[in-house]
Amino acid sequence: MKALRFVGGELRIEERPRPRPAKGEALVRVMRAGVCNTDLEIVRGYMGFEGTLGHEMVGVVEAAGEGAERWIGTRVVSDINLACGTCERCVAGDGHHCATRSVLGIVQKDGAFAEAVSLPVGGLVKVPDEVSDDAAVFAEPLAAAFEIPTQVDVRAGHRVLVLGDGKLGLLCAMVLAGTGADVALGGRHDRKIAIAEGAGARRVKADEAPFDVVVEATGSPAGLREAQDRVRPRGTIVLKSTFAAPPDLDTNRLVIDEVSIVGSRCGPMDRAVAALADGSVDPTPLIDGRYGLGQGVEAVAHAGRRGTLKILLEP
Amino acid sequence: MKALRFVGGELRIEERPRPRPAKGEALVRVMRAGVCNTDLEIVRGYMGFEGTLGHEMVGVVEAAGEGAERWIGTRVVSDINLACGTCERCVAGDGHHCATRSVLGIVQKDGAFAEAVSLPVGGLVKVPDEVSDDAAVFAEPLAAAFEIPTQVDVRAGHRVLVLGDGKLGLLCAMVLAGTGADVALGGRHDRKIAIAEGAGARRVKADEAPFDVVVEATGSPAGLREAQDRVRPRGTIVLKSTFAAPPDLDTNRLVIDEVSIVGSRCGPMDRAVAALADGSVDPTPLIDGRYGLGQGVEAVAHAGRRGTLKILLEP
Repeated sequence: MKALRFVGGELRIEERPRPRPAKGEALVRVMRAGVCNTDLEIVRGYMGFEGTLGHEMVGVVEAAGEGAERWIGTRVVSDINLACGTCERCVAGDGHHCATRSVLGIVQKDGAFAEAVSLPVGGLVKVPDEVSDDAAVFAEPLAAAFEIPTQVDVRAGHRVLVLGDGKLGLLCAMVLAGTGADVALGGRHDRKIAIAEGAGARRVKADEAPFDVVVEATGSPAGLREAQDRVRPRGTIVLKSTFAAPPDLDTNRLVIDEVSIVGSRCGPMDRAVAALADGSVDPTPLIDGRYGLGQGVEAVAHAGRRGTLKILLEP
Repeated sequence: MKALRFVGGELRIEERPRPRPAKGEALVRVMRAGVCNTDLEIVRGYMGFEGTLGHEMVGVVEAAGEGAERWIGTRVVSDINLACGTCERCVAGDGHHCATRSVLGIVQKDGAFAEAVSLPVGGLVKVPDEVSDDAAVFAEPLAAAFEIPTQVDVRAGHRVLVLGDGKLGLLCAMVLAGTGADVALGGRHDRKIAIAEGAGARRVKADEAPFDVVVEATGSPAGLREAQDRVRPRGTIVLKSTFAAPPDLDTNRLVIDEVSIVGSRCGPMDRAVAALADGSVDPTPLIDGRYGLGQGVEAVAHAGRRGTLKILLEP
């Protein structure tokens, strides 16, 4: 089968053997896969990963290992954290932070930019018929947005600012607007802000402050300083961005204002799929392009162009 | 009256007029005052404050302005944040973060290293007879330690690490050990760790990890990195230290491990006084020296010597 791989510092299409599902695994034929900023970071060499890229996908189970047969024919998305199931974090129900986990297309596990991928069935979530492939492929980044309300109290009456109108910022604004909170979005692109406005968020006003919660999703070290400037005393900054440079953070002000910074990453896949099924979130306006798997190198290059939202691969 | 003042970059004893209590204010005759690291920072020029130093004190109300007469003769401690009472934060019950507050001996308000100080009665807390002056003078830093359990869930079964065996670190270890949590203390001084052991904490083991909660009270920028190394995924770092240098913080790891950093500062004075009254916390082993107010300059110099715990002034 074809796979888009990053090996020896080079991104290329390779021919690979179709995986065989082990016990408890499903072989998923990939219908759609999405290019994420993490993929771009891997290609820049930041993550140290070698292998098949891709962790955002929807597909259909076409074969199964022992004990997983009932999944055959089911359309699924998957949690990207493949946990050991036996360590202290796993026993505590927190497999997302299993110390020995592999991560689909990111850490020691070939990803979904391929015709098929093998996945443990424990992380699969069935996609209801009413959810399109185009919507379902957003389940993973959408789950990351749904992680925020599992960590921080956000509801009607709260003032929330999302900094950054990229893919993740827009999904966060959509999800948080759904809580009934007043959600403002900070960004530079009118067309992107219009997408968030369609989901009930609004454009932030110049120097508008203070906010109860500020979500930092700019991907820039300077974003943290703006978050500090905009959050109220005892408020919360949700940090979604990862960046290579040191953060611009005033820890003295953090102490004096008793502000909290909450690191936030992967979220509940089932919650994301439920929101896609009930129509409360529609991520499809973020789609900016589609490529066949054979054009995967071009697809990643397109995703890396300034201002681009979601690029899909259709293997 | 005599007052220990920092003016024009110089710390000195000056003769000052005894304050007259305004409406709603009490004139407190100072019995004990404590030298805090913040006083040392002011003397190093970090805070931009000029005036009478001192924010840790116990005293007796000897005169009162209109409406405050019932306080005369009462032994008191005081909240150090003097709030406006009408702004959004004050109306929300959070006068500690009033944007226009003055802070006793720190921001636009002469402090307690003097024979007497005038204070609004709204921030006074009566000291019960069973609490000695030596214990009561710790109410303010002890309240800062009691701020932690108002922000973070700490209880039996939790693993807590306090980094830093200085004055604030020891008080934090004492308070948190009182919750029933397993409290380890990281520090270099056997005699200081012995004080914490007397309150139910223990010495941390080399490379012991992970902890549910890590309190950063080292006063050093490197402490934050050690806190990150020791906290578990989804755990909490409570940041008590303020420092002039940029922090050594890996924000990528914060996101990936979904760790929270909680800035923590002033706390509930009434809770601190209650703990002194019921004997659950005894801070008096921290006392390392006593000086008359006339020897205030020497007292501050002593407090600044490496390894020194609490130095008291007795006006």
